[in-house]
Amino acid sequence: MVLENINSPEDVKKLSLEELNLLSGEMREALLHRLSNHGGHFGPNFGMVEATIALHYVFNSPEDKIVFDVSHQSYPHKMLTGRKEAYLDPEKYDDVSGYSEPSESAHDHFVIGHTSTSVSLAGGLAKGRDLKGEKGNVIAVIGDGSLSGGEAFEGLDYAGELDTNFIIVVNDNQMSIAENHGGLYRNLQELRESQGTCPCNFFKAMGLDYLYVDQGNDIGSLISAFQKVKDIDHPVVVHINTLKGKGYRPAEEHKEPWHYCAPFDIATGEPKHKSDDGEDYGTLTADYLLAKMKEDRRVVGITAGTPTIMGFTEDRRLAAGRQFVDVGIAEEHAVALASGIAKAGGKPVFGVCSSFIQRAYDQLSQDLCINNNPATLLVFWGSLSTMNDVTHLCFFDIPLISNIPNMVYLAPTCKEEYFAMLEWSLRQDSHPVAIRVPALGLTHADREIATDYSELNRYEMVKKGTKVALLALGSFFPLGESVAHILKEKVGIEATLVNPRYITGTDDTLLDTLKTDHALVATLEDGIQDGGFGEKIARYYGTSPMKVLNFGARKEFVDRFDVAAFLRDNHLTAEQITEDILAQL
Amino acid sequence: MVLENINSPEDVKKLSLEELNLLSGEMREALLHRLSNHGGHFGPNFGMVEATIALHYVFNSPEDKIVFDVSHQSYPHKMLTGRKEAYLDPEKYDDVSGYSEPSESAHDHFVIGHTSTSVSLAGGLAKGRDLKGEKGNVIAVIGDGSLSGGEAFEGLDYAGELDTNFIIVVNDNQMSIAENHGGLYRNLQELRESQGTCPCNFFKAMGLDYLYVDQGNDIGSLISAFQKVKDIDHPVVVHINTLKGKGYRPAEEHKEPWHYCAPFDIATGEPKHKSDDGEDYGTLTADYLLAKMKEDRRVVGITAGTPTIMGFTEDRRLAAGRQFVDVGIAEEHAVALASGIAKAGGKPVFGVCSSFIQRAYDQLSQDLCINNNPATLLVFWGSLSTMNDVTHLCFFDIPLISNIPNMVYLAPTCKEEYFAMLEWSLRQDSHPVAIRVPALGLTHADREIATDYSELNRYEMVKKGTKVALLALGSFFPLGESVAHILKEKVGIEATLVNPRYITGTDDTLLDTLKTDHALVATLEDGIQDGGFGEKIARYYGTSPMKVLNFGARKEFVDRFDVAAFLRDNHLTAEQITEDILAQL
Repeated sequence: MVLENINSPEDVKKLSLEELNLLSGEMREALLHRLSNHGGHFGPNFGMVEATIALHYVFNSPEDKIVFDVSHQSYPHKMLTGRKEAYLDPEKYDDVSGYSEPSESAHDHFVIGHTSTSVSLAGGLAKGRDLKGEKGNVIAVIGDGSLSGGEAFEGLDYAGELDTNFIIVVNDNQMSIAENHGGLYRNLQELRESQGTCPCNFFKAMGLDYLYVDQGNDIGSLISAFQKVKDIDHPVVVHINTLKGKGYRPAEEHKEPWHYCAPFDIATGEPKHKSDDGEDYGTLTADYLLAKMKEDRRVVGITAGTPTIMGFTEDRRLAAGRQFVDVGIAEEHAVALASGIAKAGGKPVFGVCSSFIQRAYDQLSQDLCINNNPATLLVFWGSLSTMNDVTHLCFFDIPLISNIPNMVYLAPTCKEEYFAMLEWSLRQDSHPVAIRVPALGLTHADREIATDYSELNRYEMVKKGTKVALLALGSFFPLGESVAHILKEKVGIEATLVNPRYITGTDDTLLDTLKTDHALVATLEDGIQDGGFGEKIARYYGTSPMKVLNFGARKEFVDRFDVAAFLRDNHLTAEQITEDILAQL
Repeated sequence: MVLENINSPEDVKKLSLEELNLLSGEMREALLHRLSNHGGHFGPNFGMVEATIALHYVFNSPEDKIVFDVSHQSYPHKMLTGRKEAYLDPEKYDDVSGYSEPSESAHDHFVIGHTSTSVSLAGGLAKGRDLKGEKGNVIAVIGDGSLSGGEAFEGLDYAGELDTNFIIVVNDNQMSIAENHGGLYRNLQELRESQGTCPCNFFKAMGLDYLYVDQGNDIGSLISAFQKVKDIDHPVVVHINTLKGKGYRPAEEHKEPWHYCAPFDIATGEPKHKSDDGEDYGTLTADYLLAKMKEDRRVVGITAGTPTIMGFTEDRRLAAGRQFVDVGIAEEHAVALASGIAKAGGKPVFGVCSSFIQRAYDQLSQDLCINNNPATLLVFWGSLSTMNDVTHLCFFDIPLISNIPNMVYLAPTCKEEYFAMLEWSLRQDSHPVAIRVPALGLTHADREIATDYSELNRYEMVKKGTKVALLALGSFFPLGESVAHILKEKVGIEATLVNPRYITGTDDTLLDTLKTDHALVATLEDGIQDGGFGEKIARYYGTSPMKVLNFGARKEFVDRFDVAAFLRDNHLTAEQITEDILAQL
């Protein structure tokens, strides 16, 4: 076995082309095993095996610095840079993250998980190198849909003016997570079809030198191309034509579902653990919107390269036709587009996961909220308990969104309330509305749900009690119910339970009412405390004798945490919250 | 006078070419008068007079919808759409804003002030039109440096896939605010030099049809071009070559200083009101950094198209050489670049105004703070009292920046403290550091200033008193001093005065100490309350008997406000703050 002897890129350089080819087969075999047992990014890594081997054959990492965009395609890189055991030994699968990680290896330079950042980050490495008078190649590897993000373009535009060594490998696998979108991808096609010779060339138009490699999964071709650009004294793009998912037929044939996989059976490609096929908020959302679209041609769904987050699988996208738009990974454009559509009288609904809406703060503020256009934003997975990679945390959306004037950010507590709010949002034309889609599983209301939310910042008094009031926001409403239950069982306190519904403001009347027969208000939010909902309540009661306890997570970046332990560590179990409350009474 | 009879675009259409040319002269004359008396954006408007006339001659606004990027070039548009009096009658100068404004006219579709948004917003108008089955042209007017922002690229990429009417006028005046930067601008030059015929064409590479107009200040040429693309059934770029500042020699010759002007003498071009030539934080910063650069080649200044905000006038840019980088209007790239440079051992300092740092939240979080690289960010003009156009408000940076983990956001109170903090930031390599540069004029310390800020979240006890503690942040420190003074004069209270220094955390020890002999803590911050510094203090004291009053502005968008009235309305004068405090004792 060749791979067994690869402890660093130095070992790659000693191999013959035949051995390199053997190595690529062994690496795919190891990836297949690991992914079938453990899950992870499939297509991006299978497509990049040969290019990664060739990069390490030609360049001298870590003196030469390779920056992988999104870095979900960096598994082969990790296998060749001293971390192969994490791909060969099931016991060690969790020794590595799914993204590049400087704490693991000197061959990784940044923690990266969002797209379109590599050219800019690598540009910084090149500038730092030059300022210090050092040598070495700097290589950004970008592709797989990442080119459509504005930051990538800003980086390419900057690179086009450099007069120093800078190499950009464009991994053109003709895909994003779903199919690619945007006029640029037609130029990539023209370039592929003309073997890189067509005169109208996006990269050259950006001031970059250019080299095309048609056989982007052929080690020999790649080595030869990388050797040509090694130690180059100006910026150059190496455009490589690769096959996403290469080497495993189901992944080659069905690229979108095989972008990322759960554990699966290698023979059939079927998932090992059947999902429960129950309802989920994504599918329910898509079906709801499809029905709306039929009734009203002004309704249009928008995604930024992640259509299935909002349930728009390929069949549903087809059913929606021109009433569904995938703008590619371009959240800034998605928000501005939604604002424009709303201004023109359309009914846009942009579905996006909490971690990615961060990419469009200025558009939320300027393009949408200053203009006060009635677009709807669905923020999925906003919770402490969803994605747990440090680059994909979903608990900063409340401080991000809720402190923007004019925005109405709603926190439904269950399925019925979510759809009542979405229905209202589509009906009204006075506000930009964001809805934090419940993230902790489907729950149902056992009470009547309001249909009109136009009187802003009116919290729902679900149960009137005394002494302690629980303001349990959105996904944390069931947690509030649990705390109320324990308070009653344990010490006989009939706590007041409030569903705040509105993240973006305080219900002063209700908060004042609580002053008469409550000693303590506890806020519960499924996000960080800093800049969040609870702090607004603490401010409100600042000069009153009312005690306020804010429950939420500390402001910190955490990585691959155990959710239960993380919640405990932040005092967020029902028992801990109850204890903390009782300690104050 | 032709202009006197122009009450709507209909009146433009009735004119002969000769009259249109007369009109352009009269418009320039009116602009010159207004700007020389009132100040405003000069170069962008002088360059766009003819194109605006031609747009309104050919298209039927407001059925045909024109969206101006940044919209600081929309003065001629306003003159032709029923608002000419605001340019002719000095009494009415303030009837219009400096940007497009739907509340003024049906010919304006969005409030716009940040760059690079027009293509996306107009794309939304086109999509809304098509969803509703309506007709009409949609035209985005972009240029003057705006193309380099990522959002513009995302919009162009989207546009490249459309199969519907969509017209993008690229106003190529070869400038941004300062000179243009980025590889793309070389392609624009090639296009100009080849009369639009060179085969490598950025816009065509994005999938867009293309038309070049060499004489972009010639009404006849422009009318002919716009007539060609009117009612087109696919997306097209009309690339017009214009002269920024055309018609006023000083502005043609010195484009950067004439981008925006204060009132000036028409004969000489000299400003009417001499600035006091005193020290300002921009100039002091540039001079400090220039000295640092000489000592240490790793120090590099970065701007995103607004170099003079941090004092880097043309001469200072020349002096800095390769140690100063203007990335063009591309804040996302600027932040990621700074992170990369810091990772490589450089000492990057990115200077940016508060309103524009909003454009890079995800880069601050992902590229910089998750990676914890020691870059320095200087946030200028962060205050309620600086820019007062609704699109340029500078009071959201505290909630934006201070709730990101790992970031150290510092609030110096005076010149000496600012430079001590900057010095420390350049010296340390443990944290990304942002400094909120004081914005209310130069003040000096009459106390010793710390030189080391590495022990985080240690507030400075400036004066120990009893009963009332004032936590007066950054620019509002002098306000805290005034309140303390009044409290003593009026009721004999010796208030405690604290300089928090760190916006990003609480000094628990100091806050606990206050509990022993204080009844009330007041926080003073020069920004909005929501998500800000004061709320963290309110949360901290949530279960203590300590009363907390947070002073700051309400969360709202305000436009062209009178600063003094705005501060009063938010209870932010020293007298009001004192009263509010006394009412609680």
